[in-house]
Amino acid sequence: MKNTEKRTELGELGEFGLIDRIKKRTRQQNKSSVLGIGDDAAIIEAGDEYKVVSSDLLAEGIHFDLSYFPLKHLGYKSVSVNVSDIAAMNAKPEQILVNLAVSNRFSVEAIDEFYEGVNMACEDYKVDLVGGDTSSSSAGLFISVTAIGSVAIDKVVKRRGAAGGDIICATGDLGGAYIGLQVLAREKQVYMADPNMQPQLEKYKYMVGRQLKPVARMDIIHELDELGVVPTSMIDISDGLASELFHLHKHSGLGVKIFEDKLPIDNQTYEAAVEFNLDPITCVLNGGEDYELLFTISQDDHDKLEKHPDIHFIGFMDAKDKDVGLVTKNENWVPLKAQGWQHFES
Amino acid sequence: MKNTEKRTELGELGEFGLIDRIKKRTRQQNKSSVLGIGDDAAIIEAGDEYKVVSSDLLAEGIHFDLSYFPLKHLGYKSVSVNVSDIAAMNAKPEQILVNLAVSNRFSVEAIDEFYEGVNMACEDYKVDLVGGDTSSSSAGLFISVTAIGSVAIDKVVKRRGAAGGDIICATGDLGGAYIGLQVLAREKQVYMADPNMQPQLEKYKYMVGRQLKPVARMDIIHELDELGVVPTSMIDISDGLASELFHLHKHSGLGVKIFEDKLPIDNQTYEAAVEFNLDPITCVLNGGEDYELLFTISQDDHDKLEKHPDIHFIGFMDAKDKDVGLVTKNENWVPLKAQGWQHFES
Repeated sequence: MKNTEKRTELGELGEFGLIDRIKKRTRQQNKSSVLGIGDDAAIIEAGDEYKVVSSDLLAEGIHFDLSYFPLKHLGYKSVSVNVSDIAAMNAKPEQILVNLAVSNRFSVEAIDEFYEGVNMACEDYKVDLVGGDTSSSSAGLFISVTAIGSVAIDKVVKRRGAAGGDIICATGDLGGAYIGLQVLAREKQVYMADPNMQPQLEKYKYMVGRQLKPVARMDIIHELDELGVVPTSMIDISDGLASELFHLHKHSGLGVKIFEDKLPIDNQTYEAAVEFNLDPITCVLNGGEDYELLFTISQDDHDKLEKHPDIHFIGFMDAKDKDVGLVTKNENWVPLKAQGWQHFES
Repeated sequence: MKNTEKRTELGELGEFGLIDRIKKRTRQQNKSSVLGIGDDAAIIEAGDEYKVVSSDLLAEGIHFDLSYFPLKHLGYKSVSVNVSDIAAMNAKPEQILVNLAVSNRFSVEAIDEFYEGVNMACEDYKVDLVGGDTSSSSAGLFISVTAIGSVAIDKVVKRRGAAGGDIICATGDLGGAYIGLQVLAREKQVYMADPNMQPQLEKYKYMVGRQLKPVARMDIIHELDELGVVPTSMIDISDGLASELFHLHKHSGLGVKIFEDKLPIDNQTYEAAVEFNLDPITCVLNGGEDYELLFTISQDDHDKLEKHPDIHFIGFMDAKDKDVGLVTKNENWVPLKAQGWQHFES
């Protein structure tokens, strides 16, 4: 049973390295498999439209800490995370399946609370909970959600597709969910040191809400549809803006230029970042879990979105210079670094 | 944060009780959701055919013990379990998504081995691995697989649909996977008591194979199609024959009569059961994980399947007497008990 062969640690490869490795060894046999591993969702042929399918896993102690994450919010967030992937394909979510592994420290009432959050999200996103599996776990809570959406064949948007000169757009504001996590972690420490201390969350309500109850931007998808705009490429911002920009870079083969003064950050997020001795721009670039959308549009669509209050033009795709970087307020050029998801290294 | 409200243990409710509870609180909003929670897979409208979707979770220490479960087999089995659910809808699997949470005790090479099994199963079942998620886990290995298949609208088969007089059919042989698990558990004890002892598996190869590398019966689905037989209801045998018969009973509202002398059991399984002081018929009725198919056919289809070497007529659906039971070789009547999946109670 002993294995004396080479051992490579998962941290050496990282998440994206592991995905590439898995992808390389698969081969597609069915013509209904239109797009496989490597985008926000897979694309499957379904009559005269496409189905898009995404599946994500949330593990206790890695993705959430139950000491400050209410189960109802966790249920809601588990759905949001997957709906966000469906949105990133410009599709509309219709069904979800929820798999749950729970240890026996959870009661039926606790599971009820979790599903209350799931059902609230189902109402909000107009999706149906159609299946899944419930099992016990020897340790911890594991949640795996699969979301299925549909989209007209000529409307599907992938990570690939941007052209030189396309405008890079980001929705909402960024960095808030990351600051919310810092606040929750700090209050947990305070509470553990003195359980009589009440958590001071009021001041940070917005950021804590961004962390605990993220909302997938289906509103933007519906508005783009109404405005007649089909993005040339799209991805959701789950791992942080910089990481997602690198995906667009990789899939388009183009340079990516963004401007510091165009980056969307909420005032409260900015102030809290300063209070936490964090650089607000770093929070915007590398803080994850905002579940906003990052997409590119043709310059022809500029006027249709210019006045949209929640869509920000943050930069452009560059066919000449293939670098990925940020132009600062002082007009300095700062190359961005791919950060991404590094759970395996911790 | 303290919860002084009522606490109901998950074991009090059981898996099926929990599923019913979850189902009751969901409501379907999309017309594309044809069938939701409560069958082997959900049914989704997709142009002029149906897509069927199933998702299952396997947790270390609950569903498998890595001290005797090779990762390659585990990868294969994770796919089989889900393909079996697709088969039970009379559909053909086309895509799978695999979510994995792994602790850092796993190396890249270990993950490779797991996916080698996944890819072997993809070859065998002609399905494409199109997505999923890889994450770290604070403890243990968790696998969640989603399978998607397609079926003509007039060929989909549900748990509901059997009529009085329909013949109950079971494929293959039953109880083997359960005996295989007993063998593996015994050899583990022997090995732990004395690591110099080599496991004695040769004699039990068939049953151990049934446990470690179950094969979903897609061959039967293709054959039924060729023979022009559409079952009136179907379910896969994952929790044990008795449990599945109760599902058919519940969904049809009919009685279920099976005959002891018609139950399919392999000779080696029979002999090993006796050796382990287990009643072979109890193993057939309540041993799970064989991943065979249980279905009902109209009497009109009797002749088409009568000579099939791997389809066994084990009983009939009874419109008059609504009991679920077994007629013994001595013509005694033994009511069956719903056993099912009881992880929460252990």
